[in-house]
Amino acid sequence: MKRIAIDMDEVIADFNPKHLRLFNEEYKEQITVEHLMGTSLGDLRPHLRNEIRAYLYEPAFFRDLEVMKDSQEVIKWLSERYEVFITTAAMEFPTSFTAKYEWLKEHFGFLSELNFVFCGDKSIIHADYLIDDNVRHFKRFTGQGILFSAPHNCNETGYVRVNNWLEVKEYFQ
Amino acid sequence: MKRIAIDMDEVIADFNPKHLRLFNEEYKEQITVEHLMGTSLGDLRPHLRNEIRAYLYEPAFFRDLEVMKDSQEVIKWLSERYEVFITTAAMEFPTSFTAKYEWLKEHFGFLSELNFVFCGDKSIIHADYLIDDNVRHFKRFTGQGILFSAPHNCNETGYVRVNNWLEVKEYFQ
Repeated sequence: MKRIAIDMDEVIADFNPKHLRLFNEEYKEQITVEHLMGTSLGDLRPHLRNEIRAYLYEPAFFRDLEVMKDSQEVIKWLSERYEVFITTAAMEFPTSFTAKYEWLKEHFGFLSELNFVFCGDKSIIHADYLIDDNVRHFKRFTGQGILFSAPHNCNETGYVRVNNWLEVKEYFQ
Repeated sequence: MKRIAIDMDEVIADFNPKHLRLFNEEYKEQITVEHLMGTSLGDLRPHLRNEIRAYLYEPAFFRDLEVMKDSQEVIKWLSERYEVFITTAAMEFPTSFTAKYEWLKEHFGFLSELNFVFCGDKSIIHADYLIDDNVRHFKRFTGQGILFSAPHNCNETGYVRVNNWLEVKEYFQ
Protein backbone atom coordinates (compact mmCIF):
# COMPACT_ATOMS: atom_id res chain seq x y z
CA MET A 1 0.00 0.00 0.00
CA LYS A 2 1.50 3.34 -0.99
CA ARG A 3 1.99 6.00 1.62
CA ILE A 4 1.04 9.69 1.69
CA ALA A 5 2.57 12.10 4.21
CA ILE A 6 0.54 15.24 4.85
CA ASP A 7 1.64 18.47 6.52
CA MET A 8 -0.55 20.29 9.06
CA ASP A 9 -0.25 24.09 9.01
CA GLU A 10 -1.75 25.71 5.91
CA VAL A 11 -2.58 22.24 4.56
CA ILE A 12 -5.12 20.73 6.97
CA ALA A 13 -5.01 23.45 9.66
CA ASP A 14 -5.97 26.95 8.54
CA PHE A 15 -3.16 28.88 10.12
CA ASN A 16 -3.37 32.36 8.58
CA PRO A 17 -6.82 33.60 9.66
CA LYS A 18 -6.05 33.18 13.37
CA HIS A 19 -2.53 34.56 13.05
CA LEU A 20 -3.77 37.62 11.17
CA ARG A 21 -6.65 38.17 13.58
CA LEU A 22 -4.35 38.22 16.61
CA PHE A 23 -1.88 40.49 14.84
CA ASN A 24 -4.51 42.90 13.49
CA GLU A 25 -6.17 43.17 16.89
CA GLU A 26 -2.94 43.92 18.69
CA TYR A 27 -1.47 46.34 16.15
CA LYS A 28 -4.72 47.89 14.86
CA GLU A 29 -3.96 46.72 11.34
CA GLN A 30 -6.16 45.28 8.61
CA ILE A 31 -3.86 42.86 6.86
CA THR A 32 -5.73 40.14 4.97
CA VAL A 33 -4.74 36.79 3.47
CA GLU A 34 -4.58 38.55 0.08
CA HIS A 35 -1.74 40.75 1.37
CA LEU A 36 0.27 37.60 2.10
CA MET A 37 0.41 36.48 -1.54
CA GLY A 38 4.04 35.67 -2.34
CA THR A 39 5.23 36.99 1.01
CA SER A 40 4.71 36.57 4.75
CA LEU A 41 3.54 38.66 7.66
CA GLY A 42 7.12 38.85 8.92
CA ASP A 43 8.32 40.19 5.57
CA LEU A 44 5.48 42.73 5.46
CA ARG A 45 6.28 44.01 8.97
CA PRO A 46 9.97 43.15 9.49
CA HIS A 47 10.30 45.38 12.58
CA LEU A 48 7.72 43.13 14.29
CA ARG A 49 9.19 39.81 13.16
CA ASN A 50 9.82 38.52 16.70
CA GLU A 51 6.38 39.57 17.91
CA ILE A 52 4.76 37.92 14.88
CA ARG A 53 6.56 34.67 15.62
CA ALA A 54 5.81 34.89 19.34
CA TYR A 55 2.12 34.08 18.78
CA LEU A 56 3.17 30.62 17.63
CA TYR A 57 4.98 29.90 20.89
CA GLU A 58 1.75 30.31 22.84
CA PRO A 59 0.98 26.71 23.91
CA ALA A 60 -2.67 27.00 22.81
CA PHE A 61 -2.13 28.73 19.47
CA PHE A 62 -2.49 25.59 17.37
CA ARG A 63 -5.35 24.10 19.40
CA ASP A 64 -8.31 25.88 17.78
CA LEU A 65 -7.26 26.48 14.19
CA GLU A 66 -10.01 25.92 11.65
CA VAL A 67 -9.89 22.71 9.63
CA MET A 68 -9.11 23.28 5.95
CA LYS A 69 -12.16 22.91 3.75
CA ASP A 70 -12.81 19.34 2.51
CA SER A 71 -9.61 18.01 4.14
CA GLN A 72 -11.41 15.64 6.51
CA GLU A 73 -13.55 14.03 3.82
CA VAL A 74 -10.69 13.68 1.33
CA ILE A 75 -8.20 12.35 3.89
CA LYS A 76 -10.78 9.82 5.06
CA TRP A 77 -11.18 8.75 1.45
CA LEU A 78 -7.39 8.61 0.99
CA SER A 79 -6.93 6.60 4.18
CA GLU A 80 -9.05 3.82 2.71
CA ARG A 81 -6.69 3.56 -0.27
CA TYR A 82 -3.29 4.64 1.07
CA GLU A 83 -1.35 4.67 4.30
CA VAL A 84 -1.78 8.25 5.52
CA PHE A 85 0.67 9.91 7.91
CA ILE A 86 0.43 13.44 9.28
CA THR A 87 3.94 14.93 9.34
CA THR A 88 4.38 18.32 10.94
CA ALA A 89 7.51 20.34 11.65
CA ALA A 90 6.48 20.70 15.29
CA MET A 91 10.08 20.82 16.57
CA GLU A 92 10.18 24.46 15.47
CA PHE A 93 7.49 25.15 18.09
CA PRO A 94 8.07 22.72 20.96
CA THR A 95 5.35 24.38 23.03
CA SER A 96 2.86 23.25 20.38
CA PHE A 97 3.12 19.47 20.84
CA THR A 98 0.07 18.95 23.03
CA ALA A 99 -2.14 21.38 21.11
CA LYS A 100 -1.22 19.78 17.79
CA TYR A 101 -1.80 16.27 19.12
CA GLU A 102 -5.19 17.17 20.60
CA TRP A 103 -6.19 19.00 17.44
CA LEU A 104 -5.36 15.94 15.34
CA LYS A 105 -7.24 13.61 17.69
CA GLU A 106 -10.28 15.91 17.55
CA HIS A 107 -10.44 16.52 13.82
CA PHE A 108 -8.67 13.49 12.34
CA GLY A 109 -9.50 10.90 14.97
CA PHE A 110 -10.15 8.33 12.25
CA LEU A 111 -6.36 8.15 11.75
CA SER A 112 -4.23 6.23 14.24
CA GLU A 113 -2.04 8.45 16.42
CA LEU A 114 0.76 6.05 15.51
CA ASN A 115 0.60 7.77 12.12
CA PHE A 116 1.31 11.24 13.55
CA VAL A 117 4.88 12.47 13.19
CA PHE A 118 6.31 15.54 14.90
CA CYS A 119 9.63 16.30 13.27
CA GLY A 120 11.84 19.14 12.09
CA ASP A 121 13.79 18.18 8.98
CA LYS A 122 11.26 16.29 6.82
CA SER A 123 13.92 14.48 4.82
CA ILE A 124 13.52 11.86 7.56
CA ILE A 125 10.05 11.02 6.17
CA HIS A 126 9.78 7.77 4.24
CA ALA A 127 6.73 8.05 2.02
CA ASP A 128 5.69 7.94 -1.61
CA TYR A 129 4.02 11.35 -1.57
CA LEU A 130 4.38 14.45 0.58
CA ILE A 131 1.64 17.09 0.50
CA ASP A 132 3.15 20.26 1.94
CA ASP A 133 3.01 24.03 1.53
CA ASN A 134 6.77 24.50 2.04
CA VAL A 135 8.91 23.67 -0.97
CA ARG A 136 12.02 23.37 1.24
CA HIS A 137 10.68 20.04 2.47
CA PHE A 138 10.74 18.62 -1.07
CA LYS A 139 14.47 19.25 -1.59
CA ARG A 140 15.69 15.98 -0.09
CA PHE A 141 12.37 14.09 -0.12
CA THR A 142 12.77 10.96 -2.22
CA GLY A 143 9.08 10.57 -3.11
CA GLN A 144 6.75 12.84 -5.07
CA GLY A 145 6.29 16.28 -3.55
CA ILE A 146 2.86 17.89 -3.98
CA LEU A 147 2.74 21.61 -3.26
CA PHE A 148 -0.43 22.67 -1.48
CA SER A 149 -1.20 26.24 -2.43
CA ALA A 150 -0.75 28.79 0.32
CA PRO A 151 -0.38 32.56 -0.01
CA HIS A 152 3.37 32.46 0.65
CA ASN A 153 4.06 29.87 -2.10
CA CYS A 154 1.96 31.37 -4.92
CA ASN A 155 5.04 32.26 -6.99
CA GLU A 156 6.75 28.87 -6.69
CA THR A 157 6.96 27.01 -9.97
CA GLY A 158 8.27 23.62 -11.02
CA TYR A 159 6.23 21.59 -8.56
CA VAL A 160 3.08 19.50 -8.82
CA ARG A 161 0.56 21.90 -7.31
CA VAL A 162 -2.89 21.43 -5.80
CA ASN A 163 -5.06 24.40 -4.86
CA ASN A 164 -7.46 22.71 -2.46
CA TRP A 165 -8.48 19.33 -1.12
CA LEU A 166 -10.83 18.52 -3.98
CA GLU A 167 -7.82 18.82 -6.28
CA VAL A 168 -5.93 16.43 -4.01
CA LYS A 169 -8.71 13.89 -4.46
CA GLU A 170 -8.64 14.42 -8.20
CA TYR A 171 -4.86 13.86 -8.24
CA PHE A 172 -5.14 10.52 -6.48
CA GLN A 173 -8.27 9.37 -8.28
CA MET B 1 26.27 11.50 4.23
CA LYS B 2 24.59 8.37 5.58
CA ARG B 3 21.94 8.67 8.24
CA ILE B 4 21.50 6.91 11.57
CA ALA B 5 18.18 6.98 13.45
CA ILE B 6 18.44 6.28 17.18
CA ASP B 7 15.66 5.35 19.59
CA MET B 8 15.41 6.92 23.07
CA ASP B 9 14.02 4.61 25.77
CA GLU B 10 16.38 1.79 26.72
CA VAL B 11 18.84 3.01 24.08
CA ILE B 12 19.95 6.48 25.17
CA ALA B 13 17.55 6.93 28.13
CA ASP B 14 17.82 4.36 30.91
CA PHE B 15 14.18 3.59 31.40
CA ASN B 16 14.11 0.48 33.60
CA PRO B 17 15.81 1.65 36.82
CA LYS B 18 13.30 4.47 37.37
CA HIS B 19 10.31 2.37 36.36
CA LEU B 20 11.37 -0.45 38.72
CA ARG B 21 12.11 1.96 41.57
CA LEU B 22 8.62 3.53 41.38
CA PHE B 23 6.97 0.12 41.13
CA ASN B 24 9.00 -1.48 43.93
CA GLU B 25 8.35 1.46 46.24
CA GLU B 26 4.62 1.41 45.65
CA TYR B 27 4.11 -2.36 45.81
CA LYS B 28 6.87 -3.25 48.32
CA GLU B 29 8.56 -5.47 45.77
CA GLN B 30 12.22 -6.05 44.94
CA ILE B 31 12.16 -6.69 41.23
CA THR B 32 15.49 -6.01 39.52
CA VAL B 33 16.59 -5.54 35.93
CA GLU B 34 17.78 -9.15 36.00
CA HIS B 35 14.19 -10.31 36.53
CA LEU B 36 13.21 -8.57 33.30
CA MET B 37 15.44 -10.74 31.09
CA GLY B 38 13.32 -12.00 28.21
CA THR B 39 10.14 -10.58 29.72
CA SER B 40 8.62 -7.33 31.01
CA LEU B 41 7.29 -5.96 34.25
CA GLY B 42 3.75 -6.22 32.89
CA ASP B 43 4.25 -9.89 32.06
CA LEU B 44 5.72 -10.56 35.51
CA ARG B 45 2.77 -8.87 37.26
CA PRO B 46 -0.11 -9.12 34.76
CA HIS B 47 -2.77 -8.16 37.34
CA LEU B 48 -0.99 -4.76 37.65
CA ARG B 49 -0.47 -4.17 33.93
CA ASN B 50 -2.51 -0.94 33.85
CA GLU B 51 -0.83 0.45 36.95
CA ILE B 52 2.61 -0.42 35.54
CA ARG B 53 1.80 1.45 32.35
CA ALA B 54 0.28 4.38 34.23
CA TYR B 55 3.70 5.56 35.45
CA LEU B 56 4.59 6.34 31.85
CA TYR B 57 1.62 8.67 31.44
CA GLU B 58 2.93 10.92 34.21
CA PRO B 59 4.05 14.03 32.29
CA ALA B 60 7.40 14.16 34.12
CA PHE B 61 8.28 10.46 33.97
CA PHE B 62 10.68 10.79 31.05
CA ARG B 63 12.26 14.07 32.22
CA ASP B 64 14.91 12.72 34.63
CA LEU B 65 15.87 9.32 33.25
CA GLU B 66 19.59 8.58 33.46
CA VAL B 67 21.58 8.83 30.24
CA MET B 68 22.82 5.48 28.96
CA LYS B 69 26.53 4.97 29.58
CA ASP B 70 28.80 6.28 26.80
CA SER B 71 25.84 7.27 24.61
CA GLN B 72 26.67 11.00 24.62
CA GLU B 73 30.31 10.53 23.64
CA VAL B 74 29.57 7.98 20.94
CA ILE B 75 26.64 9.91 19.45
CA LYS B 76 28.78 13.05 19.37
CA TRP B 77 31.41 11.02 17.51
CA LEU B 78 28.76 9.59 15.16
CA SER B 79 27.27 13.04 14.51
CA GLU B 80 30.60 14.16 13.03
CA ARG B 81 30.47 11.31 10.51
CA TYR B 82 26.76 10.67 9.92
CA GLU B 83 23.48 12.51 10.00
CA VAL B 84 22.03 11.51 13.38
CA PHE B 85 18.31 11.62 14.13
CA ILE B 86 16.64 10.71 17.41
CA THR B 87 13.43 8.83 16.64
CA THR B 88 11.15 7.95 19.52
CA ALA B 89 7.70 6.37 19.58
CA ALA B 90 6.39 9.25 21.69
CA MET B 91 2.85 9.03 20.25
CA GLU B 92 2.24 6.07 22.58
CA PHE B 93 2.69 8.50 25.49
CA PRO B 94 1.41 11.87 24.33
CA THR B 95 1.86 13.35 27.80
CA SER B 96 5.61 12.75 27.41
CA PHE B 97 6.32 15.19 24.55
CA THR B 98 7.65 18.09 26.60
CA ALA B 99 9.69 15.93 28.99
CA LYS B 100 11.27 14.05 26.11
CA TYR B 101 12.09 17.24 24.23
CA GLU B 102 13.63 18.90 27.29
CA TRP B 103 15.58 15.76 28.14
CA LEU B 104 17.04 15.67 24.62
CA LYS B 105 17.92 19.36 24.71
CA GLU B 106 19.64 18.88 28.07
CA HIS B 107 21.64 15.75 27.31
CA PHE B 108 22.00 15.80 23.52
CA GLY B 109 22.00 19.54 22.95
CA PHE B 110 24.78 19.15 20.40
CA LEU B 111 22.18 17.71 18.00
CA SER B 112 19.76 20.05 16.24
CA GLU B 113 16.18 19.77 17.49
CA LEU B 114 15.24 19.59 13.81
CA ASN B 115 16.69 16.06 14.01
CA PHE B 116 14.29 14.95 16.75
CA VAL B 117 11.34 12.86 15.59
CA PHE B 118 8.34 11.96 17.74
CA CYS B 119 6.43 9.27 15.93
CA GLY B 120 4.49 6.05 16.45
CA ASP B 121 4.96 3.64 13.56
CA LYS B 122 8.69 3.88 12.76
CA SER B 123 8.29 2.55 9.23
CA ILE B 124 7.92 6.28 8.42
CA ILE B 125 11.63 6.77 9.20
CA HIS B 126 13.90 7.24 6.21
CA ALA B 127 17.42 6.33 7.32
CA ASP B 128 20.26 3.96 6.53
CA TYR B 129 20.46 2.56 10.07
CA LEU B 130 18.04 2.29 12.96
CA ILE B 131 19.40 1.57 16.44
CA ASP B 132 16.45 0.37 18.52
CA ASP B 133 15.62 -2.05 21.31
CA ASN B 134 12.29 -3.10 19.77
CA VAL B 135 12.52 -5.57 16.90
CA ARG B 136 9.01 -4.69 15.76
CA HIS B 137 10.39 -1.43 14.40
CA PHE B 138 12.71 -3.31 12.04
CA LYS B 139 9.92 -5.22 10.28
CA ARG B 140 9.17 -2.57 7.68
CA PHE B 141 12.33 -0.48 8.04
CA THR B 142 14.16 -0.42 4.72
CA GLY B 143 17.64 0.26 6.15
CA GLN B 144 19.82 -1.82 8.46
CA GLY B 145 18.27 -2.50 11.86
CA ILE B 146 20.67 -2.66 14.81
CA LEU B 147 19.22 -4.23 17.94
CA PHE B 148 20.36 -2.48 21.11
CA SER B 149 20.39 -5.03 23.92
CA ALA B 150 17.74 -4.54 26.57
CA PRO B 151 16.44 -7.07 29.11
CA HIS B 152 13.21 -7.68 27.19
CA ASN B 153 14.97 -8.48 23.90
CA CYS B 154 17.71 -10.83 25.19
CA ASN B 155 16.18 -13.86 23.45
CA GLU B 156 15.74 -12.22 20.05
CA THR B 157 17.95 -13.71 17.38
CA GLY B 158 18.56 -12.97 13.72
CA TYR B 159 19.43 -9.30 14.16
CA VAL B 160 22.65 -7.34 14.22
CA ARG B 161 23.04 -6.78 17.96
CA VAL B 162 25.03 -4.30 20.03
CA ASN B 163 25.27 -4.63 23.80
CA ASN B 164 26.34 -1.11 24.69
CA TRP B 165 27.45 2.18 23.16
CA LEU B 166 31.09 1.18 22.82
CA GLU B 167 29.92 -1.66 20.60
CA VAL B 168 27.95 0.86 18.54
CA LYS B 169 31.15 2.83 17.98
CA GLU B 170 32.99 -0.34 17.04
CA TYR B 171 30.23 -1.22 14.53
CA PHE B 172 30.53 2.13 12.76
CA GLN B 173 34.31 2.38 12.98
